[in-house]
Amino acid sequence: MKLNTHLREGTMSHLETEIYEQPQVIGNLLESEAGHISDIAEAIREFQPAFVCIAARGTSDNAARYAQYALGIHARMPVALATPSIHTLYNAAPNLSQALVIGISQSGMAADVTQVVSDARMQGALTLSITNNPNSPLAQSAAHHISLHAGEEISVAATKTYTAQLTVIAMLVAALANNPTLNADLLQLPAQITQTLELSSPVQEFAVRHADLESFAALGRAYNYCTAIETCLKVQELCYIIGQGYSEADFLHGPIAIVKPEFPVIVIAPKGKSSANFATLLSKLRERSAATMLITNDDNFGEDVWVRLPEALPEWLSPIAAIIPGQLFGMHLALAKGNPIDKPKGLSKVTVTM
Amino acid sequence: MKLNTHLREGTMSHLETEIYEQPQVIGNLLESEAGHISDIAEAIREFQPAFVCIAARGTSDNAARYAQYALGIHARMPVALATPSIHTLYNAAPNLSQALVIGISQSGMAADVTQVVSDARMQGALTLSITNNPNSPLAQSAAHHISLHAGEEISVAATKTYTAQLTVIAMLVAALANNPTLNADLLQLPAQITQTLELSSPVQEFAVRHADLESFAALGRAYNYCTAIETCLKVQELCYIIGQGYSEADFLHGPIAIVKPEFPVIVIAPKGKSSANFATLLSKLRERSAATMLITNDDNFGEDVWVRLPEALPEWLSPIAAIIPGQLFGMHLALAKGNPIDKPKGLSKVTVTM
Repeated sequence: MKLNTHLREGTMSHLETEIYEQPQVIGNLLESEAGHISDIAEAIREFQPAFVCIAARGTSDNAARYAQYALGIHARMPVALATPSIHTLYNAAPNLSQALVIGISQSGMAADVTQVVSDARMQGALTLSITNNPNSPLAQSAAHHISLHAGEEISVAATKTYTAQLTVIAMLVAALANNPTLNADLLQLPAQITQTLELSSPVQEFAVRHADLESFAALGRAYNYCTAIETCLKVQELCYIIGQGYSEADFLHGPIAIVKPEFPVIVIAPKGKSSANFATLLSKLRERSAATMLITNDDNFGEDVWVRLPEALPEWLSPIAAIIPGQLFGMHLALAKGNPIDKPKGLSKVTVTM
Repeated sequence: MKLNTHLREGTMSHLETEIYEQPQVIGNLLESEAGHISDIAEAIREFQPAFVCIAARGTSDNAARYAQYALGIHARMPVALATPSIHTLYNAAPNLSQALVIGISQSGMAADVTQVVSDARMQGALTLSITNNPNSPLAQSAAHHISLHAGEEISVAATKTYTAQLTVIAMLVAALANNPTLNADLLQLPAQITQTLELSSPVQEFAVRHADLESFAALGRAYNYCTAIETCLKVQELCYIIGQGYSEADFLHGPIAIVKPEFPVIVIAPKGKSSANFATLLSKLRERSAATMLITNDDNFGEDVWVRLPEALPEWLSPIAAIIPGQLFGMHLALAKGNPIDKPKGLSKVTVTM
């Protein structure tokens, strides 16, 4: 895969390389999987599922959270997140026979996710897996498989496979919604991701300024609730710091009490139906002198904006760009702390939970 | 409602009073709602829902998490947690016509939860609400309503209404599963809750010893994942401290890196199909010299047990007892810190999110 030429190739970590590969991975997916995903959408329309159930863990579970909003809003499909331990520890699979059941795992090695998909397929559900390895157990367990075509991901902290998972879900949504605007939106995505990657400097500045932070919060709403949680997961994996991701609505009703002066809060509020809600939150954060990194393309926030996302980024695709400052923050903070970047202590790339 | 006589009635906070009312509230529910819940179970069997969708926020959302396991394992019903902002911010209700849709709110005033139930009812879904106020908007929005009969809850931090919500769900599960063992289990519950309330001393000791903690983690699995999250919510509401709740499985794959000597970890591992999984976790916590408060009735953990739950407590009902040490921990920690108990700063009892 061709890399962006402005990169310092010799000195780059795998993490940095993989972060900067994202425009190409997404462009690749849009070209190579559109026809296949359109066929899968046709199979879904024929099956007429009563609901969608998604099995996933960790980063892939945040892709599932995106699907709750994208499929809910544009395809009017309710989305449940599976509870795999019901299948593995209790051997008591719920009745998924009327569902579209989707298993998501970068490696395709997640045993509990595979179990949910296998159980559902035996019950007569329509099954789909999304992985970066078409030969993996999960890929082979489902009736349909979509490959991420992301190339090998070496860094333990997943980045390009996460945005590839979101892109696959967005492509599926566009195919199901049968709305030409959505397809046109998708074509702009690689260029918008490239633009977002150029915003590394302010993120680095925020990371260096708060290099000795002990905790932080990340806030999103609706489509970008997943972005808040995934931002915290990246920082946790790379920096061994617990940040907590919240819905903006929940944060205002209590947790805001923890915010002291200079407490870092990452606010992910791309322009759209949920961004206006953040005005109250931002004024309360100002009152408390929080150190706020506001990530948005909504001009109404004026001077408060720290990372300005591409102007034309549509809300429904915004999580694919809005996670990039979080990935870069995790990387710059780990660098500032002198942590190993590609292989954080105590973590392994493939997790096989039973 | 008659209170336990051993209490220092004159000096008690509303929170403490309400915590100790729990056996009576649960006994009440078992007597007064059994017939009504049996009728609702019959209506559910007739409707044959393809899945269950539960709308709730905050503490009530943790009751919904319990329902995912209890309804999944004993009634084989898949349970989705609703995404209310799809209904309120996006005006794009997913198709819930084949679902049993349940709205849970102590006050019955949660506007977004009511919106989900109203939308679903218009679509033809079977709807049920669970509140502590039969005259509230949520109670009146659903075709069926179950009242918690908990008496007024004055403390901002919900306790008796949470265990009442769990009990209603357990009663519904027993009625749907048509398994006489489950009904027999329910009858033992008030006495087991009383026994659990007698375990206040070791919890108080842990709270006083760690009165200046800055963060902590709470770990559960399956049925008691909700207990981990709810324990963190109580401490956050009463003490303005962020603790993070994890599934034991997820915690081992990364977050355990944050555990330094004397870092407080609350482990909720009642005897059952998930408790054996905790052995590895506990040995890793010992290696790291964590301050572990292990809550269990599993004899295999030997000397490690800090709070010993009633011996005969069945796993499926264990969350109703296992949250009590968390409630007491929040209260004793707030007392140790000199915080206001009944009306924490920055919180209001009724939240009306749109």
